[in-house]
Amino acid sequence: MSVTTATPAATSPAAAPAGVPAPLPVLGRDVTVPLVTGGEVTYAALDYAASAPALQRVWDDVAAYAPYYGSVHRGAGYLSQLSTDLFENARLTVAEFLDCRAEDQVVFTRSTTDSLNLLAAALPAGCEVFVFETEHHAALLPWRGARVTFLDAPRTPYEAVDTLERALAARDTDAPALVCVTGASNVTGELWPVRGLAAAAHAHGARIVLDAAQLAPHHPVSVQDLDVDWVAFSGHKLYAPFGSGVLAGRADWLTAAEPYLAGGGASRRVARRADGGVDVEWHEGAARHEAGSPNVIGVHALASACKALTEAGWDTLVTRENHLIDRVRAGLADVPEVRVLSLFGEDAPRVGVLSFVVEGWNSSHFAAALSAEYGIGVRDGLFCAHPLVRTLLGGDPESQGECGAPEAAPGEKSLNAIRVSFGAGTPDEHVDRFVRAVRELVSEGAKWEYRTRDGRCVPAV
Amino acid sequence: MSVTTATPAATSPAAAPAGVPAPLPVLGRDVTVPLVTGGEVTYAALDYAASAPALQRVWDDVAAYAPYYGSVHRGAGYLSQLSTDLFENARLTVAEFLDCRAEDQVVFTRSTTDSLNLLAAALPAGCEVFVFETEHHAALLPWRGARVTFLDAPRTPYEAVDTLERALAARDTDAPALVCVTGASNVTGELWPVRGLAAAAHAHGARIVLDAAQLAPHHPVSVQDLDVDWVAFSGHKLYAPFGSGVLAGRADWLTAAEPYLAGGGASRRVARRADGGVDVEWHEGAARHEAGSPNVIGVHALASACKALTEAGWDTLVTRENHLIDRVRAGLADVPEVRVLSLFGEDAPRVGVLSFVVEGWNSSHFAAALSAEYGIGVRDGLFCAHPLVRTLLGGDPESQGECGAPEAAPGEKSLNAIRVSFGAGTPDEHVDRFVRAVRELVSEGAKWEYRTRDGRCVPAV
Repeated sequence: MSVTTATPAATSPAAAPAGVPAPLPVLGRDVTVPLVTGGEVTYAALDYAASAPALQRVWDDVAAYAPYYGSVHRGAGYLSQLSTDLFENARLTVAEFLDCRAEDQVVFTRSTTDSLNLLAAALPAGCEVFVFETEHHAALLPWRGARVTFLDAPRTPYEAVDTLERALAARDTDAPALVCVTGASNVTGELWPVRGLAAAAHAHGARIVLDAAQLAPHHPVSVQDLDVDWVAFSGHKLYAPFGSGVLAGRADWLTAAEPYLAGGGASRRVARRADGGVDVEWHEGAARHEAGSPNVIGVHALASACKALTEAGWDTLVTRENHLIDRVRAGLADVPEVRVLSLFGEDAPRVGVLSFVVEGWNSSHFAAALSAEYGIGVRDGLFCAHPLVRTLLGGDPESQGECGAPEAAPGEKSLNAIRVSFGAGTPDEHVDRFVRAVRELVSEGAKWEYRTRDGRCVPAV
Repeated sequence: MSVTTATPAATSPAAAPAGVPAPLPVLGRDVTVPLVTGGEVTYAALDYAASAPALQRVWDDVAAYAPYYGSVHRGAGYLSQLSTDLFENARLTVAEFLDCRAEDQVVFTRSTTDSLNLLAAALPAGCEVFVFETEHHAALLPWRGARVTFLDAPRTPYEAVDTLERALAARDTDAPALVCVTGASNVTGELWPVRGLAAAAHAHGARIVLDAAQLAPHHPVSVQDLDVDWVAFSGHKLYAPFGSGVLAGRADWLTAAEPYLAGGGASRRVARRADGGVDVEWHEGAARHEAGSPNVIGVHALASACKALTEAGWDTLVTRENHLIDRVRAGLADVPEVRVLSLFGEDAPRVGVLSFVVEGWNSSHFAAALSAEYGIGVRDGLFCAHPLVRTLLGGDPESQGECGAPEAAPGEKSLNAIRVSFGAGTPDEHVDRFVRAVRELVSEGAKWEYRTRDGRCVPAV
């Protein structure tokens, strides 16, 4: 492969075909990276499911606000007042973005992981939790101290609802119960039947929290339409990588729970007692779980992203993303050595997230070659969803998805997978380059050798 | 007061007198705000103890990195590798900034509050905690589930060490123990005898964590010189307000503890068991307590600030800050109606944080007038250190420090206080304007009336 063919972005237009909406401008769209084969190429960020680049609009909003940053809530100065308004207005923006009920609370966290850990810490005594084994670890693991029922991976959306129905029907207690489910899988990108699961949960007196980390960046999320009790999502997957996340939903469990963090902001009144101890009166409302100075810039960025996506229009965004998904699926379908991982079948609706394995390839080496020879950033491993990926691979339960796992011989099972993911900022050229790269690597082999160093697959030198 | 006299920043130089180092450039230094009396004035941010403006250098580093942002740790792409290096190098920068022991761990959190809550969650079984009642709520309250001894406010640094010594000596168990103490009070700015307290703690087999939220932005902190076991601090008070914080120190308790958050990143291996349950093997090291996608930009900003302060030179920074402290103290000393709050006496060494009350003034109204008539941002209230402020005010234990507390008549006790705080970015003009404003408000009264609206003191219109 010559350098010339490796740098199509420099010569071919990034615009989408006629009739397909254009991508939204994101930071890093002009960043070039070196190729091991020589030359440079614009970076194709195809790891949106891990973390998406900032929308240019989000960055512009952050840059415009940064000089006006000030302490929030108790500051008497003008910039403190301005920052407090901006911070509290961000709550309203998020509530609107999620189509929350009027009485819902929006709590700012650092990430979806943090949001679900917060909810886990707020479960009422004796609460049972129901979660599919197919969830991201952030949704699978936080329920420490609760009685957790892990549900087997369903193979159709119908089976998902049915599995949950049966599990809830089999409950032998009247204890409170919570179902936690993703809106879109971080591994397969497949959409989960959230409305059906919510109906099943409620029919059996359970509540449901939606892990929208992978859904919210790609599709509109309506708390009211889906009838979910809580929604969690992250700024860094929603084009606002500034360290903030959201838990939004019903106030009662949150208000009844001990504050997530103990500290200032969450405490309304603290006083020594005559016996030397300390009495604390905690805030109710979102402040109860937001102790410490909040990440105002991160929250502002997240709210800016919510506005930008809404203003771009979901019809437009989904049309564009489906166009990209179609190109990737068609391209991969042309390569018989590629197996796309799926729970619900190849044609199941999904967001711009696809995982696959390539026969005869170690996934980590494949991903390293995509980076080093094509300037394409994907991810390899088990994607923090170990049970799901192992189920999909039909593979070795001992697999850890570590880079440097033994090269799989032709016909052998891969021990981990490759994930390509994209979104509102992705130009056609990135997915086209990706499809071409897969085809070339499979048919021609890598141009370079790769080895493990410090836990990473890198070009051998 | 005419508009002309209210806008000295537009006409007088911001440079410091000969021989005094200049301030470091910060964002917002040119921001102007409207005055209720007409016209605009450059904003004097004097609420650094709540949150400091970003150093220009920090902002420049964030802006330079933002287009190169990528997912960290498992991403195979070039920007993921770059971002991972940047993130992990930030750990080394922080370790160097704090002069950590080689074997110490640096865990990134969202704030000091978060750091201390993390340590609280990692206490060994049966651990006793010793904390002065004078601490910020973030240091006072996180120790839920532990047996906590609240120590009375000492009136000298010697008494602080002595009080701790006695309390530790009176222990009736061999259980592990932790002392938590601030390096500099967020209310009085006074420096605490950390080295002596650490020696006392260790002499009695206890460990000590330093709350350096207010110390680290103003003075060098050496874990080894102070001989503390852990240090916590926040980016947003250290000129890097991007939502990150640090807990650094001994690994053993952290490694032995359950992960702070459960989720991806903290989990090394997750597998279904034959009985349907899930086995989890957690990471050791910092990753154990950093589940979820980290705030890479926030961490980068924090590391940038550490480097910027180190490169500016602590001698230079402390010289400048002491110059500002002297000006504020001298200015306030000229106003007999002003009482500066102090535990250790008026001449005790302190950082650029001073709280005070003004005879005959409601502190919230005073702070509102400083903002509306002079463009000065300070803070009023009890500063998330209720027991300390009440002790210092000798005041009403019922005081909540809310805005709109009844106007204190001359001779009556104030129910809350005013805090002025500053640092590396503060020009002389800001503190000079502040001193002049205090003098004018006390001698001439406010030009406007203020009232409470939505929990804020604002100009009555």
